[in-house]
Amino acid sequence: MMKKSLAEFIGTFALVLFGCGAAVISGKTPEGSAAGIGLLGIAFAFGLSVFVMAYAIGGISGCHINPAITISMLVAGKISAADAVGYIIAQFLGATVAAGVLYAILQGHLGFELKEWGLGSNGWGPGYLGEYSMTAAFIAEAVLTFLFLFVIFGTTSKFGNSTMAGAAIGFTLVLIHLFAIPITGTSVNPARSFGPAILAGGMALKQLWLFIVAPIVGGVVAAIVWRGLFEEK
Amino acid sequence: MMKKSLAEFIGTFALVLFGCGAAVISGKTPEGSAAGIGLLGIAFAFGLSVFVMAYAIGGISGCHINPAITISMLVAGKISAADAVGYIIAQFLGATVAAGVLYAILQGHLGFELKEWGLGSNGWGPGYLGEYSMTAAFIAEAVLTFLFLFVIFGTTSKFGNSTMAGAAIGFTLVLIHLFAIPITGTSVNPARSFGPAILAGGMALKQLWLFIVAPIVGGVVAAIVWRGLFEEK
Amino acid sequence: MMKKSLAEFIGTFALVLFGCGAAVISGKTPEGSAAGIGLLGIAFAFGLSVFVMAYAIGGISGCHINPAITISMLVAGKISAADAVGYIIAQFLGATVAAGVLYAILQGHLGFELKEWGLGSNGWGPGYLGEYSMTAAFIAEAVLTFLFLFVIFGTTSKFGNSTMAGAAIGFTLVLIHLFAIPITGTSVNPARSFGPAILAGGMALKQLWLFIVAPIVGGVVAAIVWRGLFEEK
Amino acid sequence: MMKKSLAEFIGTFALVLFGCGAAVISGKTPEGSAAGIGLLGIAFAFGLSVFVMAYAIGGISGCHINPAITISMLVAGKISAADAVGYIIAQFLGATVAAGVLYAILQGHLGFELKEWGLGSNGWGPGYLGEYSMTAAFIAEAVLTFLFLFVIFGTTSKFGNSTMAGAAIGFTLVLIHLFAIPITGTSVNPARSFGPAILAGGMALKQLWLFIVAPIVGGVVAAIVWRGLFEEK
Repeated sequence: MMKKSLAEFIGTFALVLFGCGAAVISGKTPEGSAAGIGLLGIAFAFGLSVFVMAYAIGGISGCHINPAITISMLVAGKISAADAVGYIIAQFLGATVAAGVLYAILQGHLGFELKEWGLGSNGWGPGYLGEYSMTAAFIAEAVLTFLFLFVIFGTTSKFGNSTMAGAAIGFTLVLIHLFAIPITGTSVNPARSFGPAILAGGMALKQLWLFIVAPIVGGVVAAIVWRGLFEEK
Repeated sequence: MMKKSLAEFIGTFALVLFGCGAAVISGKTPEGSAAGIGLLGIAFAFGLSVFVMAYAIGGISGCHINPAITISMLVAGKISAADAVGYIIAQFLGATVAAGVLYAILQGHLGFELKEWGLGSNGWGPGYLGEYSMTAAFIAEAVLTFLFLFVIFGTTSKFGNSTMAGAAIGFTLVLIHLFAIPITGTSVNPARSFGPAILAGGMALKQLWLFIVAPIVGGVVAAIVWRGLFEEK
Repeated sequence: MMKKSLAEFIGTFALVLFGCGAAVISGKTPEGSAAGIGLLGIAFAFGLSVFVMAYAIGGISGCHINPAITISMLVAGKISAADAVGYIIAQFLGATVAAGVLYAILQGHLGFELKEWGLGSNGWGPGYLGEYSMTAAFIAEAVLTFLFLFVIFGTTSKFGNSTMAGAAIGFTLVLIHLFAIPITGTSVNPARSFGPAILAGGMALKQLWLFIVAPIVGGVVAAIVWRGLFEEK
Repeated sequence: MMKKSLAEFIGTFALVLFGCGAAVISGKTPEGSAAGIGLLGIAFAFGLSVFVMAYAIGGISGCHINPAITISMLVAGKISAADAVGYIIAQFLGATVAAGVLYAILQGHLGFELKEWGLGSNGWGPGYLGEYSMTAAFIAEAVLTFLFLFVIFGTTSKFGNSTMAGAAIGFTLVLIHLFAIPITGTSVNPARSFGPAILAGGMALKQLWLFIVAPIVGGVVAAIVWRGLFEEK
């Protein structure tokens, strides 16, 4: 079990470091330079992190690297409660250490200062990206996490193709980001929101609850729908 | 059969939500922000939706999520008429619910108003993207749907590789969008056009016929060509 | 053999239609619109065309869709001379029909006129994209075709993975375009250059020779290197 | 062993030619043109080079094409010292020849002159891309190489999926570039830094040490962590 949790720690560390780091370091286009990676590149940074980690640690821990997935798997009866607790602690720790490493690297950038919603934090409302409402943020996070878990259950079921499951799950996270970055920055993952928020404080910390509640709601509904309507023993 | 139709409903819901949502929410670059996803990101949003759903529900329903595919499969003798009817109803419903969820989320955006050809509707002519003619729109939609179905028949035949078929089919939809967004917004899928048009009304609804007729023509020709010239029993 | 040539015809048709079409229709950013696909999107349009066709027709004809590949395979002893002739004729025909369909669609665009190097033609020198010299164009086309064929021989050899060969070969064509669009528009394929040039005429036709000679040189050298230094019977 | 080293030579040649070439030739947007490939395209150029070479030469040499990987594999006991020496020499040679070919092609571009940090050299500090500090550069290169090797050990272990390992490893290099181009241009590979630096001289050569030391540190730590905490015999 130690090995599984350690894999979850490293996987979540990579997801938050690559995803939030790409957004903060490479997102925008500096003057006179080659174009920054933009929303498309940020979407690939989060999604490909899950893609590659699925193949690196999928055989060790199943590569959840997301408490909403672990809780959904618990509801679906696919992980023990003891394992789930170890996974979730490791996920929150990995995300927090990643935000810390990102913060340390950004210190080396002349003129860096930690702004409201810094380090790639999630949020919504006036001043946050597309300035969508809280209701829009909640609907988006819950519906998208539902679809994320639906793909996870489908691709890893007996109907799925085990070779391509990691690719499909990773690209689903790309899709989720292509849709929702202007709305919430895109979370669907409480740990991914926690790491940057705990260091950035302010609005990111105040709005953290939504990125814990909405993904869990979406994930639990997906587990119930899958078990009730699709699963075949 | 219920389970198959439900899978088609969720798959088409995901395709329209991710594709049209990415286009409307994340397509353009807001001032002072990281660059929007642009036509390349929109093309990936539609194509990767098919990629991931092919692996999530391919083993359940075959993942048509497109009435032109279902009709082409019917002509090719690969699906029963009864199943085809259930599939097509589910596809139109899924697309419509997706347009509704997208509409609900957009309500949470200050200053949102539903414009002509809104919600990612398909169209052509003066005022629509590249302002191509109806003839260009029809040729493009028919030829591209032909190629889409040709790839589907080839990759899922005994000549194909079952592991990679979903990837190839999804990337074909990326290619179709890289070609045709300025012409028609790219449909090749009557359900994908129907969902946004039924809510947006106006021009989108008036031009809906082309996105039903042209994809079906292209798909049926592909079925005939495949059966007549390539298929081996 | 008829079926193989027909597959090569459709495959080359798709490659030239998707690749050149994406470049001409969707490449640039129209005013006030979502960003065009740019050089990155054009690179994906050509490369993903090979990716998807490799899985659609690879089991039928081997999916050359490029006379430089067919000639290299002939030198490597992997195709008969009779088959090679049929393949090459089909490739040139497919590319020409694709350029014709693209031309027909562009007629539906208000204000369209066929310019020098139109329809996605290859070229070099003053007035052509990055304005590189003929020497640079020749080196780039020959070296890149060498690497293209090296990857093709490696991935389809007994050292390779048959499931992923098509993906690797398609992505190699993406790489080749990421490198060389400003230099020559990127050919590495005499048929892909021929189709647009025969319709566009002018400079495209005058410079066509380089896009026949350089890719064949690169491909033949690759065949000799592979056979002499790597191949194991 | 000769064949393995030759494969490493060609693989590293391709990586440096595609990666640095795409950055220098196609990175920025020329006036009035379709958009250059930007940081996202450059990230794909490096990462897809590893993706395709993993399938082309993975069965021959294992496709290291990076001295930090070879040294990490040596520490992990997965390659002999004699093989490692041959690999590393071939990698440095391949990278240098690639920089030379790129230089020859750039000579064909009117007004080309070799600037400080030219040919896609790595670097940091005032005048280099995002102008990050040496400390930030070192942390980024070491941590990212650690993650790169962690994915390599995981995907090629008995926990991994041999078909998808090359895809996951290649996409990890995409992720590493999405994160770090503004910081160091992204190396994680002493040979990739050496080739351009030896030709460009100046600052690139003065700063070369960091791109030898930091990746090796990160790679060796990954080897120790993998062997100590994850590997199962």
